[in-house]
Amino acid sequence: MSEALFTPHGPSTDRPSERQPLYRQLADQYRRAIGNGVLRPGDRMPSMRAFMQRHGVSLATATESYRELERAALIDARPRAGYFVRVPSTAALPCAAEPDLAMQPGAAAQFVGIHSAISALVSKFQRNPHALNLGGATASPDLYPTDMLQKAAVRALRRRPTLLTAVGPDQGDPALRAIIARRALEAGSQIGADDIIMTHGGVEAMNLALRAVTQPGDTVAVESPCFFGLLQALESLGLRALEIPTSPSTGLAIEALAFALHTHPDIKAVVVVPNLQNPLGSVMPDAHKARLVDLCARAGIALIEDDPYRELVDGAQPPRSLKAWDTDGTVIHCTSFNKTLAPGMRVGWINGGRWHPRIGMLKFAQSRHNEQLSQVVLAGFLETSAYERHLRRLRESLRLQRERMAAAVAASFPDGTRFTPPRGGMFFWIELPREVSSSAFFEAALDDGIRIMPGTVFSNAGRFDHFIRLSCSSADLDLTDEAVRRLGRLAARMAAHAPTR
Amino acid sequence: MSEALFTPHGPSTDRPSERQPLYRQLADQYRRAIGNGVLRPGDRMPSMRAFMQRHGVSLATATESYRELERAALIDARPRAGYFVRVPSTAALPCAAEPDLAMQPGAAAQFVGIHSAISALVSKFQRNPHALNLGGATASPDLYPTDMLQKAAVRALRRRPTLLTAVGPDQGDPALRAIIARRALEAGSQIGADDIIMTHGGVEAMNLALRAVTQPGDTVAVESPCFFGLLQALESLGLRALEIPTSPSTGLAIEALAFALHTHPDIKAVVVVPNLQNPLGSVMPDAHKARLVDLCARAGIALIEDDPYRELVDGAQPPRSLKAWDTDGTVIHCTSFNKTLAPGMRVGWINGGRWHPRIGMLKFAQSRHNEQLSQVVLAGFLETSAYERHLRRLRESLRLQRERMAAAVAASFPDGTRFTPPRGGMFFWIELPREVSSSAFFEAALDDGIRIMPGTVFSNAGRFDHFIRLSCSSADLDLTDEAVRRLGRLAARMAAHAPTR
Repeated sequence: MSEALFTPHGPSTDRPSERQPLYRQLADQYRRAIGNGVLRPGDRMPSMRAFMQRHGVSLATATESYRELERAALIDARPRAGYFVRVPSTAALPCAAEPDLAMQPGAAAQFVGIHSAISALVSKFQRNPHALNLGGATASPDLYPTDMLQKAAVRALRRRPTLLTAVGPDQGDPALRAIIARRALEAGSQIGADDIIMTHGGVEAMNLALRAVTQPGDTVAVESPCFFGLLQALESLGLRALEIPTSPSTGLAIEALAFALHTHPDIKAVVVVPNLQNPLGSVMPDAHKARLVDLCARAGIALIEDDPYRELVDGAQPPRSLKAWDTDGTVIHCTSFNKTLAPGMRVGWINGGRWHPRIGMLKFAQSRHNEQLSQVVLAGFLETSAYERHLRRLRESLRLQRERMAAAVAASFPDGTRFTPPRGGMFFWIELPREVSSSAFFEAALDDGIRIMPGTVFSNAGRFDHFIRLSCSSADLDLTDEAVRRLGRLAARMAAHAPTR
Repeated sequence: MSEALFTPHGPSTDRPSERQPLYRQLADQYRRAIGNGVLRPGDRMPSMRAFMQRHGVSLATATESYRELERAALIDARPRAGYFVRVPSTAALPCAAEPDLAMQPGAAAQFVGIHSAISALVSKFQRNPHALNLGGATASPDLYPTDMLQKAAVRALRRRPTLLTAVGPDQGDPALRAIIARRALEAGSQIGADDIIMTHGGVEAMNLALRAVTQPGDTVAVESPCFFGLLQALESLGLRALEIPTSPSTGLAIEALAFALHTHPDIKAVVVVPNLQNPLGSVMPDAHKARLVDLCARAGIALIEDDPYRELVDGAQPPRSLKAWDTDGTVIHCTSFNKTLAPGMRVGWINGGRWHPRIGMLKFAQSRHNEQLSQVVLAGFLETSAYERHLRRLRESLRLQRERMAAAVAASFPDGTRFTPPRGGMFFWIELPREVSSSAFFEAALDDGIRIMPGTVFSNAGRFDHFIRLSCSSADLDLTDEAVRRLGRLAARMAAHAPTR
């Protein structure tokens, strides 16, 4: 789009802080415009003169605004041409390959054996507990509204003194469930507060869903690669995993799943992360979502939707959940505020579809109701517009962090490295040159003071040994940059010294 | 003991409130002496003259002090003899029968089918949601240190602003675990902070213990009667329950268990509440505890100890946990602060014995770490002597509430009613005349505005249909008295009108 169409004076629900200097307020307006896609990579910024006229500011203020945006790596000066919205240098790296759809159908569903690999990983973490963590799944605390949540907690305790000493309601705080139901409506799901059961994070929700629809020995179809926590849950419940090829751009391969449902009639459930798949970062297109829900409904099996990243997808309007296409209770929707709002609070919830009563009983038998305090704090926070403002800022920060990390990876990793830029969130699923084992890479990186996740723990079938998952979870861009460059040099050394195959 | 030996001027860790009138401070001293057994039922109180001299107070103050103790039903005036520590009128009711040890050995272990009964019960609760609850398992909020916990929470939030937005440690807050380990030492268990995993209440701890040592289809030996939550956990995990006779005074019948271990080699675990068994209120003697641990260790099966009521046992020094006799990791100890300190906080923990690593992995797979906020609040509270003071007060309050309820039951329930006074806590396991079905009694009571727990949900084998569990959980003695009297009249009517058998 042309810069002439961009009018940063337009209505904004963000109230500019009175204490911010003017140049920073203006830079923030442009930062938002870039963050939400109103200004796109390669767009020309207004000339200095146009900027001064448009905003009625001095040359000094205009210059400072542009410097601020340059420092944030959002715009670049091109000699004799002016300023442009920065084009991420990820374009320099080839995208990851689409999965080989032929690889799956013959594979047998396996009992999962991932606990020992995770245990080994965790005990290795202890070798260097102060390593910079590029392997996590939540952003650093400074990206979350720490102060506001703290104040909301103090308010809640003052208003309701017996929060800590009176037993709470079984399904969770009614006010919070009402707010969640209202928000689900915006995400395309018609549910009521009574359809929601609060859980100890999304992980407990996922476990309850699996327990509700399977018996030990049953087979569950999962994405490949998939979140290792799901594999752990399957193992601990005695379930078999059938890994379905999953695209780095469009998510689960529906045709491969359809074929698997024919060849494996013992599949009792499919588990999918439709929005910002972990670790791929893919977002399933609406048409795929519709087909997936229809496929599971016809097959009569549960579709378990793990959806904690939906609100981190780039753009002003997050995509819809699979639940939006559900007409007969096929979809069990699991999510939490753990990634989007408060990693220190274990507040998740589940909408159990037609298994709702059984899930309610399992939750009661497994851990009773959740504590009320966190729920009341969140209800207080979510009543205001603060959550939407926070989400916009978080998406902007993560986008900037992703671009910087993508540029650092492109600049420093060896030839043969590939990845598909994710559409939001913080995960990079990076394919290293085939010569580099991710387990050896993990160990060498840890010894060098950087924690990453090796690809081996994202599959039960021994795939992805030359993949790693990086997280751009820190707002300290320079620290992350430097670490990624060190990782790149390490990968280059390992690729060069690998024995020829 | 003679009243002359009682010296209320002795050192006390309770600081008398400066704002309390003198007569109440003195009454409180005697209340404590009665509560902790220094003065026992039937002991003569000092004469008025002796009281005035000993404490240097006026006749008016002495009289008010005694009136206060009379109002609290702690002392009685006997004409021309003076004042005496009240003898609980429970002596007027026959004790419950010891279990029939012959009933068990032939019984087969059953898959549990309790969910539907609980569901039916819960939906019936909805019929009269405002019924007075004499069926609960936690005391009313005014018996817990609401203000102090609230202040501790505000302090914790101020000191550690990122408590809500930073991910917490895997096993739980280290400071809290260190305090728990120190307290466990006092209870006779030699464990370190690393041996403790924090859980979402004692119920999650129990579930993890069962999952760690069993596979679906396995048999678990349980007390009969036992806590219905345990039966729910067994059902949801696909386990069979073998009910072992349990004495209302000494708990699980060890000989019956020994026999069952011979006849049922498929028993994988025994679950026991050694201190204030739910619903019986029994406390297992030390000698029994030692034998039970030894029996399970020799049989090579897990002994799961559910121990949330230990600190509610009457007396200055709570009894020891089974864990105190454990030398080889046979005992898995599960407990929480839910009954003793903060029913609104879901803070439990587990010491997994030799299954500790597996339990750690299951906990991670099932629900990750607990939220830190509650744990930090509790750590702050437990650092001081406030918890011990609270426990003493809570035990005193519960003792008074039990005596009043026992008196009301004895006075108003029909002939044929039996129960053994519990040694602490709040449960009354009452055997009604055989003509009265507890299910019918439950429904009639609920229609009359009183919620009780029918005995049927405390067994998977259809026992205890003419038993009920009452809880003296409220500090409102008169309200409870009146409700118990109504229940007594109801039982009498139902016994009178039952068809002759």
